[in-house]
Amino acid sequence: MTNLGPGRPRLEQRRRHGQTPRAEILDAAGELFTTKGYANTSTRAVADAVGIRQASLYHHFAAKDDILDALLAETVAGPLEFAEWLADSPAPAAVRLYALALFDVRQLCAARWNLGALYLLPELRTERFAAFRLRRDELRGHYEELARLVLADLGAALGAEVLPFRLVETVINIRSDEGAAPEYAEHTIPEAVLRVLGAEGGVRAEAVALLESLAGPRA
Amino acid sequence: MTNLGPGRPRLEQRRRHGQTPRAEILDAAGELFTTKGYANTSTRAVADAVGIRQASLYHHFAAKDDILDALLAETVAGPLEFAEWLADSPAPAAVRLYALALFDVRQLCAARWNLGALYLLPELRTERFAAFRLRRDELRGHYEELARLVLADLGAALGAEVLPFRLVETVINIRSDEGAAPEYAEHTIPEAVLRVLGAEGGVRAEAVALLESLAGPRA
Repeated sequence: MTNLGPGRPRLEQRRRHGQTPRAEILDAAGELFTTKGYANTSTRAVADAVGIRQASLYHHFAAKDDILDALLAETVAGPLEFAEWLADSPAPAAVRLYALALFDVRQLCAARWNLGALYLLPELRTERFAAFRLRRDELRGHYEELARLVLADLGAALGAEVLPFRLVETVINIRSDEGAAPEYAEHTIPEAVLRVLGAEGGVRAEAVALLESLAGPRA
Repeated sequence: MTNLGPGRPRLEQRRRHGQTPRAEILDAAGELFTTKGYANTSTRAVADAVGIRQASLYHHFAAKDDILDALLAETVAGPLEFAEWLADSPAPAAVRLYALALFDVRQLCAARWNLGALYLLPELRTERFAAFRLRRDELRGHYEELARLVLADLGAALGAEVLPFRLVETVINIRSDEGAAPEYAEHTIPEAVLRVLGAEGGVRAEAVALLESLAGPRA
């Protein structure tokens, strides 16, 4: 450990993931919030884990809840962008819903930290996180709209349209229980998303093609 | 507020749910852990919420994690007992799985506090909660065993047997997002539990009869 100048020595040299100090802070906070707990983690602990001074951290985030908000925003930004693009796609609703579930399961599995485990924090029900809750509700709305279209195509009664979004988020619980992202999830869950609606499977190839046709959101 | 004797005055007279001091402590802790957060709640705060002295609380629970452990144990004790009873039942696997899902969804909805929201706490991955994790794994094992039997009856491939347990636990997320136990859950979720396996519905009446035939576990 070398003292690199005035103030606290930088504990580790760019040990964190991320190309920018901001990304490094988010990576360290993602780890600490999911492994030690949000309430148990101080901004000081985050700064220490990055190897910067707390004052430098405050240059990027004014408070701990701003870090949490930024982390949470990441968990819905990609799927929401994809869902908005899908809304204008002429593909059948079942293909679009499968593609959305596949995209979302993949990003929930690929994320370095299981950030969805933070959705159940009581802190998230405060006014501070109203904007995040609205974004997540928007995403849920996209799932439900596609699911309603699938049910309508089948002439089926409403009811199960709430389940596809919930099924996709079970990845978070599986990751938490198994300690790792489950490999089977990206097959099992999108298939189940259609099956709970009473729809036939067999759309995976079309859904993957739809996903790959999209240059916009990160896949 | 009357001072009832030496020490701290009892703040409220039996305001809490529960017939015994132990049950009152669990009720208060359930509220505080799910609304303020586990890390944010001290045993002192729990004692204050019950209106007893901290020393009296320690008479029932030696530490905060013992309170959490007792609360968590409650969330699986009922369904686990029912699942063990079901294992010996001659009813078809689909009926038994539906009955287990119905029983479990009902108890997750009826519980005064949404204690399942605590399953994702990082604290639960420590050695202290190994016994609880084992009990929850046992319950998950019962779901998976019944689901495998349903798949075998259908001549279907394995894969989806992990999903019924996960679907049932989505009640926790729905309660958290909607702020209340969803009325539709006890129909929608057990139906979906069979549908994700590719099984026909139409077993509800039989499953309810099976559930009601049981005097043992609290239904």
